Amino acid sequence: MKNDLLITNCLLLADAATQTPRAPSFIAIADGHIVQTGAMADCPLPDSGTVLDAAGQLAMPGLVNGHCHMPMTLLRGLADDLDLHTWLHAHIFPAEARLVTPEMVYWCSQLAAIEMLLSGTTTVADGYFYEDAVAQACIKVGLRCVAAQAVIDFPAPGVPEPSRNIEVAQQFVEHWQGRHPLIRPAIFAHAPYTCGNTTLRRAKELARSQGVPLFIHVAETAGEQALITEPQGPTPLAHLHNLGLLDRHTVCVHGVWLSEADIDLLAASSASLISCPQSNAKLASGRAPLPAMVERGVRLGVGTDGAASGNSLDLFREMGFAARLHKLPSGDATAMPARTVLALATARGAEALGLATGLGTLQIGAPADIILVDHRQPHLQPWHDASVLVYSDCGADVRTVIVHGQVVVQDRGVLSVDVAEVLAQVQRLAREGGLMV
Amino acid sequence: MKNDLLITNCLLLADAATQTPRAPSFIAIADGHIVQTGAMADCPLPDSGTVLDAAGQLAMPGLVNGHCHMPMTLLRGLADDLDLHTWLHAHIFPAEARLVTPEMVYWCSQLAAIEMLLSGTTTVADGYFYEDAVAQACIKVGLRCVAAQAVIDFPAPGVPEPSRNIEVAQQFVEHWQGRHPLIRPAIFAHAPYTCGNTTLRRAKELARSQGVPLFIHVAETAGEQALITEPQGPTPLAHLHNLGLLDRHTVCVHGVWLSEADIDLLAASSASLISCPQSNAKLASGRAPLPAMVERGVRLGVGTDGAASGNSLDLFREMGFAARLHKLPSGDATAMPARTVLALATARGAEALGLATGLGTLQIGAPADIILVDHRQPHLQPWHDASVLVYSDCGADVRTVIVHGQVVVQDRGVLSVDVAEVLAQVQRLAREGGLMV
Repeated sequence: MKNDLLITNCLLLADAATQTPRAPSFIAIADGHIVQTGAMADCPLPDSGTVLDAAGQLAMPGLVNGHCHMPMTLLRGLADDLDLHTWLHAHIFPAEARLVTPEMVYWCSQLAAIEMLLSGTTTVADGYFYEDAVAQACIKVGLRCVAAQAVIDFPAPGVPEPSRNIEVAQQFVEHWQGRHPLIRPAIFAHAPYTCGNTTLRRAKELARSQGVPLFIHVAETAGEQALITEPQGPTPLAHLHNLGLLDRHTVCVHGVWLSEADIDLLAASSASLISCPQSNAKLASGRAPLPAMVERGVRLGVGTDGAASGNSLDLFREMGFAARLHKLPSGDATAMPARTVLALATARGAEALGLATGLGTLQIGAPADIILVDHRQPHLQPWHDASVLVYSDCGADVRTVIVHGQVVVQDRGVLSVDVAEVLAQVQRLAREGGLMV
Repeated sequence: MKNDLLITNCLLLADAATQTPRAPSFIAIADGHIVQTGAMADCPLPDSGTVLDAAGQLAMPGLVNGHCHMPMTLLRGLADDLDLHTWLHAHIFPAEARLVTPEMVYWCSQLAAIEMLLSGTTTVADGYFYEDAVAQACIKVGLRCVAAQAVIDFPAPGVPEPSRNIEVAQQFVEHWQGRHPLIRPAIFAHAPYTCGNTTLRRAKELARSQGVPLFIHVAETAGEQALITEPQGPTPLAHLHNLGLLDRHTVCVHGVWLSEADIDLLAASSASLISCPQSNAKLASGRAPLPAMVERGVRLGVGTDGAASGNSLDLFREMGFAARLHKLPSGDATAMPARTVLALATARGAEALGLATGLGTLQIGAPADIILVDHRQPHLQPWHDASVLVYSDCGADVRTVIVHGQVVVQDRGVLSVDVAEVLAQVQRLAREGGLMV
């Protein structure tokens, strides 16, 4: 069997549910997909392609970051420990109004892509303005991306005239449909409190007609309902339902303040939800009812949110936080076990984004998005179980990253771009924007 | 001025409260202590000692891990996602009864010391059995340690006869008093529910007579009170107070279930408290009232707990968890700001352990416990504020570690011991103990 890339001698964690076999294994890759896996005894002879010796490393599916605003790396740590209103209105919105350009989006998204690859994320769902430049940055660095052009009923970067927001999104989607294997276009309606009902309906119609996902922030803060309906009116999620927005191609984000009925609505509509626990905690917004949603079969994933609120795009860290945090309300240490969280950050997360079957696993036929984790690190030893990946690992243990069959990080070196140049460009943008003294 | 070691060209974060100057700085070290710091323009000529060029790195105080059980690295990830009772009685206690020997303590503590140094911790407060072997491991690896011999009213490793527990602790303390600059001996009375009143009183008397700290787990779980007093009786902390145990040389650990009156008691008695937020969350024990204790001026630190419950000994990770977690109950994003958490993990933590003035800072005269953090890493850029250290950093960003003036880690290489040998010994112990299949 022909293969472009052969990974040898790894331990193989095929998905979040299975035990890690102790015997060294191989993974054969062709045309960007996994074509064969097995014990080294059955390893095919290397073909004309590359052989990657992964002795001492664990091969596992690359992680799926279900929600990010990649360009916001520029604002990381700029305004920490502030309440949401001050953070957003005194710092983030003014900085964005001043600083967001296609150039800023391009370089700062590259920085985000580098950070994500170096911490084991191989797929991200992003939502921002000038999303063209995000898609281009992901292609350049080699990160798989569901790139969602933002729609909002205010003048925005690249969309000074809000009445044109749907038109701009449509151009974006049409441009990127089927254009590149790493990019899936989508639409990001910012939130029910920043988009009017007409815009929300039009955004969903556009998404339906184009066959792409619609992303939307919803129920992030306790005060959100008051911004969109009367006190006795529907919840933010029910508001979306009433507008006909909820179906299995709608991806809700945050869902911190969901009622029991809201959870039922998610389960019944098959709309998915991406939780961003670290960002929600840091902004003191609250904690999504993740264990209840797992139990009710809601389609779920986890995300880091942008670096301005989440601060870290390391999804290993996000997993450790989620698994610990969600044991507290119930006082039940068996809640949100490590393997459930690992599933949300891999196959379940990919499914929640509507991505190809097999993504987030190392099954035959799956896209070859694979990370090699150095499990010999002192803080991961002795290695009893894959729960170590959730509770003890941080992204820095990822040595090598393969996306769509391409080695984009090897022994922690980024092969696709010059990291020093990206850092220099981002620092220049921060200086020119008056952000660094 | 004579110096043994001169660190040049670093950014210098002298303590958790000050701003990081942008100008490159130097630190001069002699006889294990900091003797001079300043801008590079004022840098003394290098003496006969070593010069360490720290260009592109941030020099900051080494972190202080206020509570650990170092030998428990052997059990990391062995029994995750279980309730406390099952975890302790079905897994941890049986494994400990079978596996804890001086040899196990020696090698597994070395592994813990390596993990801590590599993630920026330069001081640990440890409590376990065969604490002699912990102290020896710390000296070998080069980690500063408040080593506390455990006292418990059950047959225990090295103390099969509980009636001898105070005598064994006394021998331990007498042996280590003033013996080595890295080791401060102490006593660890396990908990009010595992030590009777006589043992608790005798442990405190011994600590007083020897001038060493007394550590004790207290108010870790909601059910603890029922184990020690009648339902209407005093809280666990009040129980210790009634026994005369609380003074400024007593270090309480956990304090998850503290009443308002308990917090007053801590503040009034000057007893300190070490919080272990990740361990308390993972075991679903709860969340200590840390913001309230900060406000009331309780002497506070943070710790990782042992690797069997905390899973990671990376105090950077613990800081990020604590800063996010404690914003949730109040819904106030200004609660537990990054610099407060950084203080708890450095100078305030050192003070809470009763350690030398200046430890946890880079002040002149302080012990030279210094870490160099690579702030050029993509996930730490652009660098706006030291909050990045709390919210975005993980221990893997620490490049070089100096303890008591000795370079023990350089460019992530451990200089003091052969890491591969330590890992091999721990893996052998895990295999021989039937822990690894």
